[in-house]
Amino acid sequence: MKNPTAAMLVIGDEILSGRTRDANMHHLAGELTKIGITLTEVRVVADEADDIVRAVNELRARVTYVFTSGGIGPTHDDITADCIAAAFGVGIDVRADARAVLAMNYENGEADLNPARLRMARIPDGATLIENSVSRAPGFSIENVHVMAGVPSVFTAMVAWLLPQLQHGAAVVSDSYRVDLPESVIAGPLGEIADAFRELSVGSYPFFEDGKHGANLVVRGTDASLVAQAMDRIKSAFSGRIA
Amino acid sequence: MKNPTAAMLVIGDEILSGRTRDANMHHLAGELTKIGITLTEVRVVADEADDIVRAVNELRARVTYVFTSGGIGPTHDDITADCIAAAFGVGIDVRADARAVLAMNYENGEADLNPARLRMARIPDGATLIENSVSRAPGFSIENVHVMAGVPSVFTAMVAWLLPQLQHGAAVVSDSYRVDLPESVIAGPLGEIADAFRELSVGSYPFFEDGKHGANLVVRGTDASLVAQAMDRIKSAFSGRIA
Repeated sequence: MKNPTAAMLVIGDEILSGRTRDANMHHLAGELTKIGITLTEVRVVADEADDIVRAVNELRARVTYVFTSGGIGPTHDDITADCIAAAFGVGIDVRADARAVLAMNYENGEADLNPARLRMARIPDGATLIENSVSRAPGFSIENVHVMAGVPSVFTAMVAWLLPQLQHGAAVVSDSYRVDLPESVIAGPLGEIADAFRELSVGSYPFFEDGKHGANLVVRGTDASLVAQAMDRIKSAFSGRIA
Repeated sequence: MKNPTAAMLVIGDEILSGRTRDANMHHLAGELTKIGITLTEVRVVADEADDIVRAVNELRARVTYVFTSGGIGPTHDDITADCIAAAFGVGIDVRADARAVLAMNYENGEADLNPARLRMARIPDGATLIENSVSRAPGFSIENVHVMAGVPSVFTAMVAWLLPQLQHGAAVVSDSYRVDLPESVIAGPLGEIADAFRELSVGSYPFFEDGKHGANLVVRGTDASLVAQAMDRIKSAFSGRIA
């Protein structure tokens, strides 16, 4: 049986302007790998409604799960929840369950919910809430789309709450071996090994350090003994060889 | 006049499996911002031909420039050049100019070009070469698509060679101001400022540190005096306020 698949949609101008370097993508990728969900695509789009709606609709048709990060806060540039509602063609409004969760965050409860805060209780019709153990304001899931915050500590907490509830696949085992040879020397033998182990993913990740070429050879798959066999073949092909 | 737009396509399993954290995306985003090219989307896809071809064709129809990274080495998993040829419906073969450049990297020149190395001289028909000052094996440009290596030192060198040849836009000026208030308090006044300066991008990037909420408020635009005016408004709205 094939593992479930996933796509991630990162929403916001921060990464596209070069202002910050992504952290959520790297975190989610690692967590999904651990539980056997295959991340097949990541997209980063700006705070533009048309771009967000199109990306959500393209991705949710293609994979088992879509995860989004960013754009669910209270400021004018937080338009993700409205875009998700538009993508699904459903209504959106302040909802009692989200409002109650949010109110727990403030000294005077509901009385402290000003219009900006109430924006964070706007949930598309038919969605269920995702718990935020850090700062209360919830994310939400609608069909196969899971909408989470962009602040890394909150994103991480939401992912930790959500993933155990999803369908897991066979855990992916991986092993890697560093070879200090140029890829042009590695390529022939490695291609033969990849051909011999078609159930596995055999990758070569080149680097260039101090004027010398090398590569990390990575074998990944759900059958641990097959991964070990392929790695043995790689080691016997390349160990002791120097450029 | 609007600034030129760009999209980036990162090709390879490395980021999707969580094995490595992106560096090229962050580098390119910063370089494009400096020269007034607006990066509107980034996609990360696996080493799967169908996914690469579809992404290239979608993106090149939508933006002024597409930049790709990864998948142009000599190993079996390097399929980018063939996918680009397929996306444009053109042929691909070892080309004399690329072969000559590549041969400069080896002691015995052309005589050292084994089949794996020759794979790196396969260039789609009609493409022009992108110089690689680090390790010779060239990238290439075909129409508005610029195909570069995934190794960060090589990607960086190719970007440095390529960008001066593209159409630049008006440089984007930005300024930021840190506010130690929750976004729910910031949202109202900030939304009014964003409304008053519609030519600018006014963003709020929240953080959560040591149990306290805050946000970096960022103003971006091509008119420096307008950016300064908006930033003055932000400072007078929030300076001295604490949660």
